[in-house]
Amino acid sequence: MTFLDVSLAELERFILDGIPLARAMAIGLDSFDGSRLVMTAPLLPNINDKGCAFGGSLATLMTLACWALVEAALRQRGEDCDVFVADSTVRYLDPVWDDMRAEATLAPGASWKGFFAMLTARGRARGDFTCVVPGSDGKPLASLDARFVAKRRA
Amino acid sequence: MTFLDVSLAELERFILDGIPLARAMAIGLDSFDGSRLVMTAPLLPNINDKGCAFGGSLATLMTLACWALVEAALRQRGEDCDVFVADSTVRYLDPVWDDMRAEATLAPGASWKGFFAMLTARGRARGDFTCVVPGSDGKPLASLDARFVAKRRA
Repeated sequence: MTFLDVSLAELERFILDGIPLARAMAIGLDSFDGSRLVMTAPLLPNINDKGCAFGGSLATLMTLACWALVEAALRQRGEDCDVFVADSTVRYLDPVWDDMRAEATLAPGASWKGFFAMLTARGRARGDFTCVVPGSDGKPLASLDARFVAKRRA
Repeated sequence: MTFLDVSLAELERFILDGIPLARAMAIGLDSFDGSRLVMTAPLLPNINDKGCAFGGSLATLMTLACWALVEAALRQRGEDCDVFVADSTVRYLDPVWDDMRAEATLAPGASWKGFFAMLTARGRARGDFTCVVPGSDGKPLASLDARFVAKRRA
């Protein structure tokens, strides 16, 4: 199939315009290559009382990165859906002392093919996604596993 | 044992001063009765593109409510600890269209007695906590199960 171009600037604008908390976190969309989406947020507006990244900011950034990944994959295929998170598990592995970078992908074993086949058949689909915030040595400082649902708009 | 009075206003001030995102969410501490802590946040700064509560705000509010419950229970006993979340699972059950109210308690089966025995013996303790955002009929719209660690400050 032919993929449409996805404007990252437009998707970032959609997020920042629609979600005040994303503005407060100064979230940015870094890249999307069809299978991986990278979202960033500076440390300062996301700091906690200990001087490292606030757990709520980490959870929110990783959830939003997965959400944006699903939204970008849908836009690539010309699909117009409501996308929402159903459940998620976050592991806080090590404190984050720098600006944050969250990398979202499909969960191991999941496929876009299966996701879009479900969407075509039923008008809604659910899929499993994963996100990490890597440290300077590449090991994750935090990770999220989440299930998202996409529903075609009427 | 004798419990110290915990100033909710002081704890709220600590959270709002130390965590810019908590200020952006306009978080408030409603009550703490020794076993249950209630934290609130208005819908408007926590809205999403669909007009209901943003998932990141729900996850953050419930995580912070559990964190504040642990912190309050420690202050009651004169303990000075660093408290941090280790992992958490959130279930987004129904959209939240109103101001949010999160109710945090110990997880079923967990006890303060066990938690503080561990803290006394080892200088650190971990405990399981749960939080719900109830709807107008009392059924949860979202829930969180999380593990927290408290470490005595040196």
